Amino acid sequence: MTTDTKFTFTLEYKSEECWGRVGRINTRRGEILTPVFMPVGTCGTVKTLSPEDLHIAGAQIILGNTYHLLLRPGTDVLDHFGGLHKMMAWDRPMLTDSGGFQVFSLNKLNKITEDGVEFASHIDGRRYWISPEESMRIQRSIGSEIMMAFDECCPYPADESRAKAALERSVKWAKRCREDHPTMRNGQALFGIVQGSMYLPLRLDSIKRTEDIGFEGMAVGGLSVGEPKELMLSVLDGMMPYMPEYLPRYLMGVGTPEDLFWGVERGIDMFDCVHPTRIARHATVFTRKGRISLLNSKWKLDDEPIDETCNCYACKTFSKGYMRHLFKANEILGLRMASLHNITFMLNLISEIRCALSEKRFNNFKKDFFENYFSKEK
Amino acid sequence: MTTDTKFTFTLEYKSEECWGRVGRINTRRGEILTPVFMPVGTCGTVKTLSPEDLHIAGAQIILGNTYHLLLRPGTDVLDHFGGLHKMMAWDRPMLTDSGGFQVFSLNKLNKITEDGVEFASHIDGRRYWISPEESMRIQRSIGSEIMMAFDECCPYPADESRAKAALERSVKWAKRCREDHPTMRNGQALFGIVQGSMYLPLRLDSIKRTEDIGFEGMAVGGLSVGEPKELMLSVLDGMMPYMPEYLPRYLMGVGTPEDLFWGVERGIDMFDCVHPTRIARHATVFTRKGRISLLNSKWKLDDEPIDETCNCYACKTFSKGYMRHLFKANEILGLRMASLHNITFMLNLISEIRCALSEKRFNNFKKDFFENYFSKEK
Repeated sequence: MTTDTKFTFTLEYKSEECWGRVGRINTRRGEILTPVFMPVGTCGTVKTLSPEDLHIAGAQIILGNTYHLLLRPGTDVLDHFGGLHKMMAWDRPMLTDSGGFQVFSLNKLNKITEDGVEFASHIDGRRYWISPEESMRIQRSIGSEIMMAFDECCPYPADESRAKAALERSVKWAKRCREDHPTMRNGQALFGIVQGSMYLPLRLDSIKRTEDIGFEGMAVGGLSVGEPKELMLSVLDGMMPYMPEYLPRYLMGVGTPEDLFWGVERGIDMFDCVHPTRIARHATVFTRKGRISLLNSKWKLDDEPIDETCNCYACKTFSKGYMRHLFKANEILGLRMASLHNITFMLNLISEIRCALSEKRFNNFKKDFFENYFSKEK
Repeated sequence: MTTDTKFTFTLEYKSEECWGRVGRINTRRGEILTPVFMPVGTCGTVKTLSPEDLHIAGAQIILGNTYHLLLRPGTDVLDHFGGLHKMMAWDRPMLTDSGGFQVFSLNKLNKITEDGVEFASHIDGRRYWISPEESMRIQRSIGSEIMMAFDECCPYPADESRAKAALERSVKWAKRCREDHPTMRNGQALFGIVQGSMYLPLRLDSIKRTEDIGFEGMAVGGLSVGEPKELMLSVLDGMMPYMPEYLPRYLMGVGTPEDLFWGVERGIDMFDCVHPTRIARHATVFTRKGRISLLNSKWKLDDEPIDETCNCYACKTFSKGYMRHLFKANEILGLRMASLHNITFMLNLISEIRCALSEKRFNNFKKDFFENYFSKEK
């Protein structure tokens, strides 16, 4: 880690084929080429994978979840170890969410006031309190390169008045986050989050007011929360032209391989999702010919790797027949190999997307990928 | 794999301090220095670990379980893949048990005749049949370098007539195994198994008759099945002087770090046990100062590795504080790192024991190890 506490986003190239951008984020723990996919390390580990696995897979930055890390191991432990990087032996950049999403989605027993949210741990029912200032404090304990403002994320569907109320509260809380955490305090950047549910006027209002507060990046929250994919994309279509060009743009909690294309071509720079590792633990893996379930009996005697174009250890070493056996026998190695493969797949794909953007062949690359990925032949 | 189908055991050095021996087994998939500890890959994987992990940990040979592999993936799959080595990408030697132990211990619904055993799968209740000839067939499908004769393993305690009946049946079955699998058929060695429960006269009778049949190695079965440790060691004390010197001697299902010393000094060459990986998945790990539970709250803020003398990835990378967090948060990485550590610990320990034997300092090494391992200071 350098002592340089600057955080810069350089927009290197704007596609002529779409709204896609190629850029570079510089942080105290090294640079991040964008567009980027960020594997999620919910509780201080990307499930089943070691830091070495993530290095080899090419992860530039990983996510930590403030809510989960507050509950386990807790900020007393994080403070003792000098932050999550040292504790989990991850030396590259890290981004933390604010805890807001989990407080609202995992907790039915929360009590929301203007000041913050009181909630019960989903693990043991213990009462906790998160406010904008508390979220900033926890994220400083974690020590992420990129912190997120504490916001209220609307469920879907939400009527417009509910969405507007959540937006107003999120703006107030965003201001308190920025006051508590001025630009690059502790060497950590802070991103604002655009809310407004599926209502474009609210979204545009949120963009304006978030930009006015002034953050090092701008995230799109409150999407991919259960709405139809077409609706999500149309909301993005409406709002992306108004997102400030000079800030990195982060579409929170998205996505799938196809989402990367749909987000990138709308001007998104950063993605994260538990999807690749979560489905991997249920034996579903990505291939260039689409998603497959390793439990399918058709793989019983299959000698080929999951994806012959993939360079991960699982694909270089094991057949689908063996992978199926591991899942049938409930072997942990299966979960780990499928997770490693899916993460590698996403990281290779976003890297190829970045190159295709730069080389003005994004649309062709997308067409080729989609033709294979959505082909019937598996 | 060479086309050389010879299997040799060379006794290189006999200790003057105890009955310990240093030797070398040559197989078609490379050599094995003895004494050796063999990690157990029950269902075609040493739980949580990849072949690469096992290579790095220094595993010379691993075990496969005939009973489990018959049920999953089944011999049709094993035959298709050309054996378990190719299927699981393990290129070093492998040993398979005969299936007998699991048939008798996991199945209450088995039906034993002189011909063999009919039993119900512990997974789905499906009926299977194993006989001496069937066990040989399955082990040839697996393709292990060392096969085991199909025997009847007595539970503990067993009265003498029960033990004698099981012994008589095991001798008959051993002969049928040898007839079905003559020396180095298919390039695979076959070991006989000494039974006789805790009755020394039966044990000595079993040794004699097993030697008379003629095998490439001799295993001690029916120990470590619930009897007090002192009883197991006294049975070994009584029988080991009568075990043929020219054969590798394998103490089945043993053991712990301390067992390695107790077995080696009585002339055992080969060990296997699920203990190191099983306790690892329950957060218990070996250290030079004894076993510890990573769940203990005393490690909450501990900055030190599990064992500072260990060279495994977990010890080179993570603190006990982080390992405790992984187990508290039910993270699979914890199971994997603890398993990797315990296997590395056992393999390093048996390697040090081998060196200490060669260098005539076994008793001193044992004294030092035990003083630390059983010290109160953790």
